[in-house]
Parts: sequence; C-alpha cells; structure tokens
Amino acid sequence: MGSVNANGQPAQRSVIRPSPLQIGDFAYRLSITTRWRDNDVYGHVNNVVYYAFFDTVVNRYLIEQGVLDPEGGSVIGLVVETQCHYFSSISFPDNVVAALRVEHIGRSSVCYEIGLFRNDDRVAAAQGRFVHVYVDRATRRPVALPPEWRSVLGHLKA
Amino acid sequence: MGSVNANGQPAQRSVIRPSPLQIGDFAYRLSITTRWRDNDVYGHVNNVVYYAFFDTVVNRYLIEQGVLDPEGGSVIGLVVETQCHYFSSISFPDNVVAALRVEHIGRSSVCYEIGLFRNDDRVAAAQGRFVHVYVDRATRRPVALPPEWRSVLGHLKA
Amino acid sequence: MGSVNANGQPAQRSVIRPSPLQIGDFAYRLSITTRWRDNDVYGHVNNVVYYAFFDTVVNRYLIEQGVLDPEGGSVIGLVVETQCHYFSSISFPDNVVAALRVEHIGRSSVCYEIGLFRNDDRVAAAQGRFVHVYVDRATRRPVALPPEWRSVLGHLKA
Amino acid sequence: MGSVNANGQPAQRSVIRPSPLQIGDFAYRLSITTRWRDNDVYGHVNNVVYYAFFDTVVNRYLIEQGVLDPEGGSVIGLVVETQCHYFSSISFPDNVVAALRVEHIGRSSVCYEIGLFRNDDRVAAAQGRFVHVYVDRATRRPVALPPEWRSVLGHLKA
Repeated sequence: MGSVNANGQPAQRSVIRPSPLQIGDFAYRLSITTRWRDNDVYGHVNNVVYYAFFDTVVNRYLIEQGVLDPEGGSVIGLVVETQCHYFSSISFPDNVVAALRVEHIGRSSVCYEIGLFRNDDRVAAAQGRFVHVYVDRATRRPVALPPEWRSVLGHLKA
Repeated sequence: MGSVNANGQPAQRSVIRPSPLQIGDFAYRLSITTRWRDNDVYGHVNNVVYYAFFDTVVNRYLIEQGVLDPEGGSVIGLVVETQCHYFSSISFPDNVVAALRVEHIGRSSVCYEIGLFRNDDRVAAAQGRFVHVYVDRATRRPVALPPEWRSVLGHLKA
Repeated sequence: MGSVNANGQPAQRSVIRPSPLQIGDFAYRLSITTRWRDNDVYGHVNNVVYYAFFDTVVNRYLIEQGVLDPEGGSVIGLVVETQCHYFSSISFPDNVVAALRVEHIGRSSVCYEIGLFRNDDRVAAAQGRFVHVYVDRATRRPVALPPEWRSVLGHLKA
Repeated sequence: MGSVNANGQPAQRSVIRPSPLQIGDFAYRLSITTRWRDNDVYGHVNNVVYYAFFDTVVNRYLIEQGVLDPEGGSVIGLVVETQCHYFSSISFPDNVVAALRVEHIGRSSVCYEIGLFRNDDRVAAAQGRFVHVYVDRATRRPVALPPEWRSVLGHLKA
C-alpha cells in the first residue's frame, strides 16, 4: 500500500520473500485438524484458511492462559493487520501445527508471529504476522495491556 | 518476518499504518453480500473472511475476462503472499464492495491491491495485497504470463 | 436417526426424494454472491455452504423486518434442526437466490423452508428446512413468540 | 418439504426430536479441533460448521481406508442429502469427536449417521445424516459401489 523505497519509487515488495522459520523458533504449539472443506478446487488448503489457523492459535493461547474471556472479559482483541507468506502446500487430511511467538509488545497492541507446519515437518509451510490491538469491550477504545497480559505474552517473546 | 531497518534492528512494522484508499483508486469493483456466518463473537465480520473477499474479486475478474478457467485451463494462480490492514468494522448484513487494482506485473507473478468498502462508503474499511504466481496446472511450475493475461491485467494497473 | 416405519423396520429414508420447488413458491428472496472459497475440490459449492445461505436468508429477513437485533435484542434464535436436499450443482461465480417461506409457527419455534436457485433458474438447485427456537438471550430459555414476530413471520406462511 | 401424514395434513416434523445417541453407538471416531472462527455472535459453534465436521469424518474415513482418492480416483462422492439435530452447544476451544456409522448401503448411495460429541461427553451434542451418491469422476453418473468400498463401509454398519 504505497510503501516507497529509498529512491522514492514504489517498493516491489512482492520480490522480497522471507526464509521459512523452524518449529524450534516458536515457544507455543497447537495441533489443528484440517477439514474436507479447507481444500479448494486445486486440492490444497485455501489461502484464506491459514488465517483461521492464525487467530485460532492466538486466541486459544490467551484463553488457556486465563487472560482472554471472549464472552465476558473487559478486554478484547481487535485485529488491525495480518500477513502471510505461503511456501508449500498443505492438504486435507494433513494435520497442521500452528506455532506462536510474540515479536513486539506495545502499550495496547501485540504483534504475533505464527508458523504453520505440515504434520511433522520442521520447516514452516507458511508463516505470518497477526497484530491485535486490545480494547475495552464496551467502548472499543485501546487500553493499556494489564500486567497479567504482559506476563503471559512475555513468555512467548521471540 | 525478520525485516531489518537501516540501523540493523528489527523493524517495528506494526507501527506503520497506511492511509485508507478511496473507492476511486480502483478500476474494478464487485459487490459481495455478507453472510450471517461471517460475523464473529464480537459482532463484526471476522478478519479471516476479508481474505475470502480478496480471492473472490481476483478470481472473478480473471474468470469474467476469460483468461482463468479453474476447471480446465492450463494456467492457474497459486497464492504466495497476502496481507490486510483493517481500519473499521463491517458487519452482516452490510454489503461489501471489493475493489481491485494491479500494483505490479512480473514475469509469472502479479501483485494485486484490494480495497474493501462498507456499503456506499468512499473510504476503505480494509485494504491489502494479494500476490499470485501463475503456474502450469500439471507441473505447478511458474509460467511466463501469456499475452492475453498481460492485457487483461494491464487494464487494472494502478 | 432410528425412525421406524409401519412395519417396525428402519425407514430407508435416503430413497425418499422431494420434488424441487419453484421460485414462485416463496415470498421472500435474497440474492447472495458466491465466493471462490465456496467451491470444493470437485469444482462445486460445497454442501456445507448451502447452510450458510440458509441462515443468511432467515436472519436477514428477521433483521430487515426489525424484529431480530443480534447484538442487543432480548430474543435470539437458536437452531435445533436443519436439513437440505441437493438436486443440482452451483459453482462460483454463480449467484444464488435464497428464497424463504414459513412452514410452521409454534409457540416458540418456527420451521422455515428455503429454496436455493442458481442464477435465473426457476427450479431449486437445493432446498431444505431450518428450525429456530426463539429464546431469551440471557437465560437461553424458550419464549413465546412476541406478536410482532408472529406478524412478520405470518407474511411468509406457505 | 410437503411431506404429508396419514391424515392428509402436513406433518409437523419440527415436533419430532430424536434421542441423542451415545458415543458407544459408533464404530469410527475422529477428534476435530474447533477454531476461533467457528463461533458465531452468540458464542457457540455456528450450525453451519457442524456439517463441515460431517463431511470431514466421512471423507477422512474413506481416504484413510484407501478407497477415496479426491485428486485422481475414478469414484467420487456427491452429497444428495444432509440433516442435523442440535441438542446442546459446542464452543471454541472445545474439541469435537465426530463419530461415524453407516445406516444404509444402496447400489450407488450410502447413508451415514454422524454423532458429534463435545470433549469427553458420552451423549451427542448433535447428530445427523449424510447421504453420498458415488459417481464416476468424469461423467458424474452413479456407479455401482466397488467391492472394496462395500467392504470398507460394511465395517461401519450400525
């Protein structure tokens, strides 16, 4: 979206490809079953579904750790940016290991990194970013991350 | 994923937020109905669904223009990167206008930009990138974009 | 599930196929765009997605008529049974017309019938039932349908 | 859909509710992780998603048993009818056990019954039918079920 490089020309960012991360790069891992419906007409898990793995691993970690209560908690996470690089395909009935770490913790926002691994693979099939801003449920205004959130998130710091 | 700024430190990319694009910035527009199931527990279209709008508008344009035949054509598009910035919420039963333009055409790859507009809004509720590599259906190896594809894509050049 | 016919033998219900309904059999109609992701590996809209069309047309009618407020209303609908018969295929980028009528209004429950029509077809590609029980949002206990609900639903009585 | 009872009056089928099946009623069981996106605005797995569990357990059994090859096999399954009764709610991050048995094997069609169980529950949270007609991939005409399919399906006969 309009990023500009040092020469004042639009960056051809599609040329830049990160290297796939390793399973050992991540502190938290969740196994997720694929579903028949995940596959698209080309026989692979559709690109959209990868983001369903992303917000599943993020929210599950926060719920398991006791900080996020989607039904009644006063702090909820709204998504402001996501990104994914796709390296190799995953297909139903593969299992997916969604692996999570925290890149950056701000005052109200957290940038997570997620790697998706096919079955027992050690190298990511896809990886990306997921940026949450934490807001008050009622006002939907950003709140400073409570101390228990900071502690829980700190465990996943890259 | 490991981008590094001029000082050799990891870029805090979550701080950088593009400005929302306008509906007039896009050459092709498609109206998409939202579905009850699109809303998540917070009452808004879930972040994952935005990418379903992305690949709908890209593929529909290519099919309408007669270049992509998902069932039998020799050239198919594989997704290698996607990204989305979320500015404001969309909720069922809103309509979404998915607007498309082409940022970059490479030898085998195309970087699309998509803006998503709520109902009659002129300013994007969300926008992002969608990078396709075009491959041979059988070998899944990149192919040089055929001339008719280049022509069809050229119409959407930003 | 264990239904038994007059002879005390399990009913072979899979043999019984209803006849497709006509578009004229329905009082309310909603056009829904298909999405790339709706197609499965066989190139047709996946059977699961038909139910997303069902609950979209039901809830949209109730919201448009001003009786259902999913965010804050005191009465919400919980689904207790759904069923679909599939006659012919629908594929992205087809449009779907979801057509709605009411088969039965009980004290707290409503049985809807939905026909799904491909583009301008007059004969249903699929049709089915969708049974809602209306409950109090807080207690999740069935409530007697309020008069304005009965009126709105009565307009769609078959 | 217009079913008529012995008195010539429309059957009030919404009144008939089967009893929930037990986990022990099923021969094949598959654990499926729920996803954040499965929950709808009321905080429970949306009714549509149950059918994604249905076709996941059916197709996974057929793939594991070596009879279904979705990419290249000559016989594929098309869905002609599905139905689900919902008894109690499931919510992310619950696990779901999808349990499968075969109610009826015809010449070309199979009627499956599926029970969905929340975590370690012994009583189904939901259950339903899923009817496949097996067809030739190319002609999409029904085929007589091959002997190896009959054998594999016979193992799940209720």
